[in-house]
Amino acid sequence: MLEQETMIPSFTNGDAGITELLDYMHEIEDLKALGSLAEWDQNTEMPEGAGEVRGHQSATLQGVLHERWTNQRLGTLLNRLNEVINRSDYTDADRGLVREAQRNYDRSTKLPRKLVEEMARVQAGSFEAWRRARQHNDFASFAPWLSRTVALQREVADHIGYAESRYDALLDLFEPGMTASTLDTLFAPVREVSTTLLRRIEASGVIVDDTCLQGEFSEEQQVALSEVLLRGMGYDFSHGGIAVSPHPFTTSFGSPFDVRLTVHPDKHFIQSSVMAAIHEGGHAVYEQGSASTLVRTPLAGGASMGAHESQSRLWENAIGRSEAYWQGQFAAVRQAFLQHFTAIEATTFARALNRVKPSLIRIEADEVTYNLHIIVRYELEKAMINGDLAIESLPGQWNAKYREYLGIEPGSDSEGVLQDIHWSSGFGYFPSYTLGNLYSAQIYSALRQQYSNFDERLASGDTAFILEWLRNKMYVFGAIYQPATLMERVTGETPDPEFFTRYLTSKFEAIYQLH
Amino acid sequence: MLEQETMIPSFTNGDAGITELLDYMHEIEDLKALGSLAEWDQNTEMPEGAGEVRGHQSATLQGVLHERWTNQRLGTLLNRLNEVINRSDYTDADRGLVREAQRNYDRSTKLPRKLVEEMARVQAGSFEAWRRARQHNDFASFAPWLSRTVALQREVADHIGYAESRYDALLDLFEPGMTASTLDTLFAPVREVSTTLLRRIEASGVIVDDTCLQGEFSEEQQVALSEVLLRGMGYDFSHGGIAVSPHPFTTSFGSPFDVRLTVHPDKHFIQSSVMAAIHEGGHAVYEQGSASTLVRTPLAGGASMGAHESQSRLWENAIGRSEAYWQGQFAAVRQAFLQHFTAIEATTFARALNRVKPSLIRIEADEVTYNLHIIVRYELEKAMINGDLAIESLPGQWNAKYREYLGIEPGSDSEGVLQDIHWSSGFGYFPSYTLGNLYSAQIYSALRQQYSNFDERLASGDTAFILEWLRNKMYVFGAIYQPATLMERVTGETPDPEFFTRYLTSKFEAIYQLH
Repeated sequence: MLEQETMIPSFTNGDAGITELLDYMHEIEDLKALGSLAEWDQNTEMPEGAGEVRGHQSATLQGVLHERWTNQRLGTLLNRLNEVINRSDYTDADRGLVREAQRNYDRSTKLPRKLVEEMARVQAGSFEAWRRARQHNDFASFAPWLSRTVALQREVADHIGYAESRYDALLDLFEPGMTASTLDTLFAPVREVSTTLLRRIEASGVIVDDTCLQGEFSEEQQVALSEVLLRGMGYDFSHGGIAVSPHPFTTSFGSPFDVRLTVHPDKHFIQSSVMAAIHEGGHAVYEQGSASTLVRTPLAGGASMGAHESQSRLWENAIGRSEAYWQGQFAAVRQAFLQHFTAIEATTFARALNRVKPSLIRIEADEVTYNLHIIVRYELEKAMINGDLAIESLPGQWNAKYREYLGIEPGSDSEGVLQDIHWSSGFGYFPSYTLGNLYSAQIYSALRQQYSNFDERLASGDTAFILEWLRNKMYVFGAIYQPATLMERVTGETPDPEFFTRYLTSKFEAIYQLH
Repeated sequence: MLEQETMIPSFTNGDAGITELLDYMHEIEDLKALGSLAEWDQNTEMPEGAGEVRGHQSATLQGVLHERWTNQRLGTLLNRLNEVINRSDYTDADRGLVREAQRNYDRSTKLPRKLVEEMARVQAGSFEAWRRARQHNDFASFAPWLSRTVALQREVADHIGYAESRYDALLDLFEPGMTASTLDTLFAPVREVSTTLLRRIEASGVIVDDTCLQGEFSEEQQVALSEVLLRGMGYDFSHGGIAVSPHPFTTSFGSPFDVRLTVHPDKHFIQSSVMAAIHEGGHAVYEQGSASTLVRTPLAGGASMGAHESQSRLWENAIGRSEAYWQGQFAAVRQAFLQHFTAIEATTFARALNRVKPSLIRIEADEVTYNLHIIVRYELEKAMINGDLAIESLPGQWNAKYREYLGIEPGSDSEGVLQDIHWSSGFGYFPSYTLGNLYSAQIYSALRQQYSNFDERLASGDTAFILEWLRNKMYVFGAIYQPATLMERVTGETPDPEFFTRYLTSKFEAIYQLH
């Protein structure tokens, strides 16, 4: 029945132009997949002494890809296709393919190959420097790499061009069409609702007890539990796998057929690995949900980073921090750590996951403060790129903003400005998380409207109906539609931050009895 | 002092032709490293459902490499360099680089790109088919893949050309200049000494007891023990790593800076992982020993597959199956499995590793029968390639040869014709193992002559002097010299099977008291 309801997207068969473009894209995507594999390896298995030679390898691959993306033959082909692609005998998949190819072609022809290779080289060295700096709480040793990255990203922005600010050029890579001024508008109500709720919660005197999440949890058992939870979400291990890395991430080497993720267990706090597994699982089921017809094209995978984060955050928060979800899944947690959880109920566990407390580490933040972590990073990276913030002032500025927005301050740079991997490679990604939260709340609202018995099914251990709905409405289309169009197709409305502010307020008014 | 004695090879600085060739080779080696990483991943971590898409990725990469290797610009550059390269102002490294580039250019220009891509595709599918066929003892499901591989390898041989037999064209890839008729000559005394010794051993009535190698050994502990033994050999984990795969292997992603290996522990028989670790460790220390000046060129790594196997077999057998070695290293084994080995002595353990008993599995074979395993495979693959053996007759022929040479017969194809990974990718490699044994004995003889107190040092736990000698004499030069030249430089003599037959006879006459 499902198959009849779902429209599986496909490319027009036998059209010479589309066939040529597909052949071209297949080769590029194959090479990109090998680059992703090199990154995966670098984060999970690579010996530390291999950083330099890996840097060369990545740089060479980026150079080869850049050569492919800037080939005049591709430009000519795209010109030819653009003239006819809006005709009704072409499909949405055809149009998406041409659009994405054109976007990449345009970006790439604007960037000199030397710059692209240099970025890959710096990225590899910068990653190693970041890893060591974080380990030894030594921002000074990372600072020269960060300066170099900022300089290169500014060069990138200048080559690409922008209307208002350099930062917009970088942003567009992750969220097509997005600008800093739009973000400022979208983020204003988010910041408002977050700070207001935080004040109300702190004033309420209500304490959410999360001691049940603390204890001794072996790393192996946490990874095993992550596997159980991921299987429960519908993540397919025959097209995936799990590993451990300093910073959890999801990557793909040919979606939907090979999508893997990592977790980073904390021996003393089970929340980290559990929520990371569900978060990365959200990314991963999105990637695995692309129609197999889209394989080896830039359309296999997510529509944008914001769209991607909407799925990680939907699974992590709207679902994975709900009482109903844990009523259905808590047995697995108890089973994994029997001694610890024997006397603890699902409701206690679920409630503990919703403790609101300003903290230093973004990936462990609660839903109320999370976007404040993002807004700190957004403001700082925008300032760095626009030339308004010197690298040596960054740790101080970071700490000052934490004090201002969250009322707390890092005791070390390792738990401050060095905590995230992102700035070892570039800028413009962080806003995607908050955009993801906005999209997520809107999609979650549409999803719940479909199922009057949503909580009952979830509490019975069923998540398959959720995955099915998301797949059919969203995942299967990959990147065929751009974010705003996709949101309209999935939810019937253009992106609107109201869904998120309502969701957050009503959820935490209930938990903290704010009336 | 060492640095003064050792000649570190280097390329001529500032020569425009060498610089251009190096730039060209760097790019190729970087891409090759990513291909090796894809294979490593496929054998260690890749989800089973990703085989097809990985096949495409490997095929695309092979295509890109083929394009690089056949570029007319490279041909012109090599022509120019070949005219001047024998002048004394060029170094041996320069000459090695031009020679290896020319070899690859010649081979590649003879192979159509379509054929290269098709081989990569078939190889990926064939690997998966082999893995499943071996698991389910189902040769029939692997047969079509093997047929396809044979057909493709015959095509390759026809494109490359050969004087006597198709098989020679494949052989040359692994051992430059080698032919089947030379192998027949070299292998005759090996087969003679093996069968004679086996008859004498069986007639002796002496039994070498290896029950101390049997028991219950956890896989994790075996991997941990492998690490300890590898560290003891001088394998550098900051430029390496260990993983588990169905068939142990060593690979490099940029020698000497990233060289990794796998083991395949057998829960009930500790010999498998211990000897595999030392065998693969031999390959790995050879790769890690290349001068860092050779990085990102085809000269980083081994001189040939025979040269490579000479090092794995030298470490595994001449050293790793000697009493002196275990007097120095046995504490680590005892430490890893305290309960099992508490009452067992190093001499008992070492003797057990030298039990001669015709067996079905090559990688577990003793030194006396090992080459008979190789000769079975050599004869069969030569027959397949030369068109003298139909695939459907292969399992029967395999079993018949085992009965003839070793006096035993596999009970299933999984422990027979399906046991090795090699035929899932191609032909011509197996003879390298026996060539390796021949080279190994010759090098070992030269090594022992240098150190009058060889056994005493080894028994004291010192292996560093061996690694140092091998590095300085051999490893540091990578593939600068071809095998025969290298053997002369290392041992003062051209390859001679007498070293091996003497080594084998005297070692096993002593162990089995054959007088």
